[in-house]
Amino acid sequence: MTKTNPGRFFEDYAIGQTIRHAVPRTVAEGERALYHALYPARHALYSSDEFAISCGLDGSPLDDLLAFHTVFGKTVPDISLNAIANLGYAQGRWLRPVWPGDTLRAESQVIGLRPTSNGQAGVVWVRTTGLNQVDEAVLDYVRWVMVRKRDAASPGPDPVVPDLAPAVEAADLLVPEGLSFENYDFDLAGEPHRLSDYAIGETIDHVDGVTIEEAEHMLATRLWQNTAKVHFDATHRPDGRRLIYGGHVISLARALSFNGLANAQMIVALNAGAHAAPCFAGDTVCAWSEVLDTAPTQAPGVGAIRLRLVATKGDSAAMTLRDADGKYLPDVLLDLDYWALMPV
Amino acid sequence: MTKTNPGRFFEDYAIGQTIRHAVPRTVAEGERALYHALYPARHALYSSDEFAISCGLDGSPLDDLLAFHTVFGKTVPDISLNAIANLGYAQGRWLRPVWPGDTLRAESQVIGLRPTSNGQAGVVWVRTTGLNQVDEAVLDYVRWVMVRKRDAASPGPDPVVPDLAPAVEAADLLVPEGLSFENYDFDLAGEPHRLSDYAIGETIDHVDGVTIEEAEHMLATRLWQNTAKVHFDATHRPDGRRLIYGGHVISLARALSFNGLANAQMIVALNAGAHAAPCFAGDTVCAWSEVLDTAPTQAPGVGAIRLRLVATKGDSAAMTLRDADGKYLPDVLLDLDYWALMPV
Amino acid sequence: MTKTNPGRFFEDYAIGQTIRHAVPRTVAEGERALYHALYPARHALYSSDEFAISCGLDGSPLDDLLAFHTVFGKTVPDISLNAIANLGYAQGRWLRPVWPGDTLRAESQVIGLRPTSNGQAGVVWVRTTGLNQVDEAVLDYVRWVMVRKRDAASPGPDPVVPDLAPAVEAADLLVPEGLSFENYDFDLAGEPHRLSDYAIGETIDHVDGVTIEEAEHMLATRLWQNTAKVHFDATHRPDGRRLIYGGHVISLARALSFNGLANAQMIVALNAGAHAAPCFAGDTVCAWSEVLDTAPTQAPGVGAIRLRLVATKGDSAAMTLRDADGKYLPDVLLDLDYWALMPV
Repeated sequence: MTKTNPGRFFEDYAIGQTIRHAVPRTVAEGERALYHALYPARHALYSSDEFAISCGLDGSPLDDLLAFHTVFGKTVPDISLNAIANLGYAQGRWLRPVWPGDTLRAESQVIGLRPTSNGQAGVVWVRTTGLNQVDEAVLDYVRWVMVRKRDAASPGPDPVVPDLAPAVEAADLLVPEGLSFENYDFDLAGEPHRLSDYAIGETIDHVDGVTIEEAEHMLATRLWQNTAKVHFDATHRPDGRRLIYGGHVISLARALSFNGLANAQMIVALNAGAHAAPCFAGDTVCAWSEVLDTAPTQAPGVGAIRLRLVATKGDSAAMTLRDADGKYLPDVLLDLDYWALMPV
Repeated sequence: MTKTNPGRFFEDYAIGQTIRHAVPRTVAEGERALYHALYPARHALYSSDEFAISCGLDGSPLDDLLAFHTVFGKTVPDISLNAIANLGYAQGRWLRPVWPGDTLRAESQVIGLRPTSNGQAGVVWVRTTGLNQVDEAVLDYVRWVMVRKRDAASPGPDPVVPDLAPAVEAADLLVPEGLSFENYDFDLAGEPHRLSDYAIGETIDHVDGVTIEEAEHMLATRLWQNTAKVHFDATHRPDGRRLIYGGHVISLARALSFNGLANAQMIVALNAGAHAAPCFAGDTVCAWSEVLDTAPTQAPGVGAIRLRLVATKGDSAAMTLRDADGKYLPDVLLDLDYWALMPV
Repeated sequence: MTKTNPGRFFEDYAIGQTIRHAVPRTVAEGERALYHALYPARHALYSSDEFAISCGLDGSPLDDLLAFHTVFGKTVPDISLNAIANLGYAQGRWLRPVWPGDTLRAESQVIGLRPTSNGQAGVVWVRTTGLNQVDEAVLDYVRWVMVRKRDAASPGPDPVVPDLAPAVEAADLLVPEGLSFENYDFDLAGEPHRLSDYAIGETIDHVDGVTIEEAEHMLATRLWQNTAKVHFDATHRPDGRRLIYGGHVISLARALSFNGLANAQMIVALNAGAHAAPCFAGDTVCAWSEVLDTAPTQAPGVGAIRLRLVATKGDSAAMTLRDADGKYLPDVLLDLDYWALMPV
């Protein structure tokens, strides 16, 4: 009898089930430095304790995506080891900053199940919560994946499909306690643009690009303790290529978006996300953004901007998402919809 | 007269000689984060301060192999710069945890010398001790290497071959002060298997594999301040390949062994080790383990498991070490015999 | 109207202008660990808190070049995004150590402008100062670059060429407060050579070499938040090669110089520097040094050594800088002139 983790199959999930994911993780200065080495991250609030203090925080929190990847990584052995496809994200919110020295763990609740029509697999929806060492939730999000069945002949459960909002309402965004952009230093932040300078529908080509190396995405993916074999083992696919963790592309695109969105400081919600195409080492990742919405918040000087962040393979200048049939263009790697906080 | 280190030759060693190795090193949160980026390490005691505290420690120590590599790296300029072969390890023990902020240095005592029969080289045995900033020993081990002679015609010393035990006795294992597995959280640790679930002779295929990149093993090997030219300089060998530091393979295999041995938390002894074949970038490293022994300890809820850890090039499913003639199979990279602590 | 940074052109600079560079950065234990992973750095004062304390400091400062690269990186978006060539450095001094936890920012003052004879571009001289979180200067240096004009037909400014000393005077070197080499432990430092063992004109081949990987130089260059596209985007040059940040070669060569200059502990001045040839992944970098001068300092046991550090592509054994016509030999990558502190 094997002692290794075979992963869960579709039959192993039930509505309402809560899964406590393994291996809590203390994240600190070292993870912060690595984040800056792995991604061209320059948002000032995550780069400088002094800048963060000038914004009313106690110091610089760890990058919001570092928190996301750490929590996500914990779920992989229980949720996506046998996944055929990572289908989507919804209703994600960052609930409080993660500080250096915090220990993160994760729990997921099964909120939806639907067998596929061919009976070979099923879609599983989970709401995952990341918690810190005093059991405060730091973020939560819904994710759904297609998971293999152990036995194609096994009867499927009654389908339950959760009702998911297309986006987090602006009124539901949580602004970290104490945050104020009233003394915001635009020079140090890197760009003069404030929320009122962005128009809904505006698109921004972030210009820069990064060609990905195998070592980089593997260092990152290991750092998040994401164990999915396909990211690390070149013998796993017939073509000998390692599939890059989708979150690596998210972080890369977000960091590239500094150039034009330097003041979109904190990510507070993940509305939706699609990994439109696989990414491999050797690909040059570029990014563009579209302003989807703006909203005020209660915090002094702080507004919210809803952005579509698109990662492309190669040049992002065309800033076109879909073809005439509504399908993603072949160079689109990622289509992410999120809310960030920006000085008004 | 050159000011650079030519390394020591066989003639430069004498029985009883103590060598204080250069360049003490402070290891902290940054090294911990890098360890998690370089290896798919998931053992909870080294991942989470909270988990370590729940096991009676003050926080999460640095990985036992991080301590080993740091100490080992210091010895390279004095012991193995002119080594032809790294022949073995014995009688290694971890004597106390290394905490973030500790400063490590190393000393070695020459305990054995034996010229080779052709007179070109000799075998040198050293007992190396790693010490922290208050001169407490944190680990010690015996290692032996074959070293070139400066002058093949020089007379060799009288041979002294130390009497080395095949394994550290269970009674001699040191359990870190305060360690208790009485409140051990198997969910958070990642697997339900306790010491009593493992049978002597049982083998475990750890399933996962990692394809190694040049950048990764060089980052690791530099981090341990191991200066052996052959790991870094592609012009050093006629075939243009860089030889991967054997310790990189040890850490990789140990991390992979989480899958099936998630509760083999702390390494407390190194009984023996052979780098059976060289490892190069592009190799996909997999691992399997064999349970060699189990033993109780005095600490609450803490048992000891003696394991053979085998790293293979490619698929580890066959779990076969040697051919009919007793020689290592060509895909075997590492054969390591160690003791770890596990909940009973 | 684009929101991304187009960089400055020659017309955008004026004598006396001060530029506050964006994105302050807190540097800590994580950056220190990465520095040791990226470069074979072994100088004891930067490796061990205990060693630094024995030299009269409060602990181990961050590597002097880590401070330099962090400050330099901040200047890139304002100074060298449209640079055609990085022409030189002069009059650089390290003014106080950078400690883990410090936050660095940078300012540059324009001190020279000279249009090129063809009117297409101009040379810009800036004095850049790195400052910590309490606005103390930690280093400053002059750098000059050739920058494109926005409009070749635009009239150039009256030329102002600063009068730059060929080297920092020994009397102007600043020794960190408290530094003493009176209790210097040569064993732990790694070599017995003191200042009096080095003769002016002496050359040292540092023997070791490192073959560079794409992932490594990109990790480093991102860590310094240097955004120059040419380092990251393989589609940017027709030959598909990424140009390695010159500072990566500086750090690599300095780290390699440990072997023969282990006691040249702290860098206190940058007299001059030329990136003689571009460096690409796959190059094996070696290094040699020439002793240019020595001088006493006021601090107990502390002397100063002025060194030429040369990085070569491949074997450094020839230790020859220029051909018969006075041009750099094709294998010379870097020619750097600096002062370091060494026990007398």
